[in-house]
Amino acid sequence: MTVAATETRSVVVEREFPFPPDKLWRALTQPHLLEAWLMKNDFTPVVGHSFNLRGDWGGVLDCKVLTVEPNRTLAYSWDFAHDDPAFNLKSVVTFTLTPTAAGTHLRMEQAGFRPDQRQATGGARVGWAQMFDRLEQVVAQED
Amino acid sequence: MTVAATETRSVVVEREFPFPPDKLWRALTQPHLLEAWLMKNDFTPVVGHSFNLRGDWGGVLDCKVLTVEPNRTLAYSWDFAHDDPAFNLKSVVTFTLTPTAAGTHLRMEQAGFRPDQRQATGGARVGWAQMFDRLEQVVAQED
Repeated sequence: MTVAATETRSVVVEREFPFPPDKLWRALTQPHLLEAWLMKNDFTPVVGHSFNLRGDWGGVLDCKVLTVEPNRTLAYSWDFAHDDPAFNLKSVVTFTLTPTAAGTHLRMEQAGFRPDQRQATGGARVGWAQMFDRLEQVVAQED
Repeated sequence: MTVAATETRSVVVEREFPFPPDKLWRALTQPHLLEAWLMKNDFTPVVGHSFNLRGDWGGVLDCKVLTVEPNRTLAYSWDFAHDDPAFNLKSVVTFTLTPTAAGTHLRMEQAGFRPDQRQATGGARVGWAQMFDRLEQVVAQED
């Protein structure tokens, strides 16, 4: 009997930001703000829209918008094609915004890492923490 | 008559660092230091060695060492494979170190951008300037 290995792992990063949901939502969905904390992009918050996230050093991610609930939920695929299966990635990033007394709780889950992709999983954990730092700076400057 | 379009463009970033060449060389060639200012990697300063540079968000570059002259010149290919020709990149990065009265002049040339890759070329210019900032911090902390 063969059992297909379908188990995947997620990276979850959560933080409470001192801003209302609509301010965070703008930073998640407006291309020039998204560029300031994440990457260059041709994002539009429309389900089905395909876009790229582009790193300054030449790397590119292939993405597609999956869910848009303004000020509440945003999800998109986050894929990276590479011949080496260690680097090939098909993942989904979901942002969930929940209003709190002090602002907004933001939860980011990136799902789809295979168990053998420890390096990529660890990198994502570090990367998202840094991106959240930049996101906070970007929204603060918008005030 | 058909004339093949072989013209390519380079990004050049130069800076004088207040460190001797051998200190900068270590930061260019030791994997843990290279990770601190550039990207995660399995670099070794041996001509012909293939390695990857890995971004925290899942992107990966394919590289191969081309030139190693300790404390003077380091060159490697810096390739990114993508179906979209706008993003597909085959480039060569060459670091040239020249001792100066105050330290070392470092010149980085990334050659191989096609004329239609303006976005990638601009991104590389921004990216290398940021990486040089981090390089300076990393070497200063090693002192």
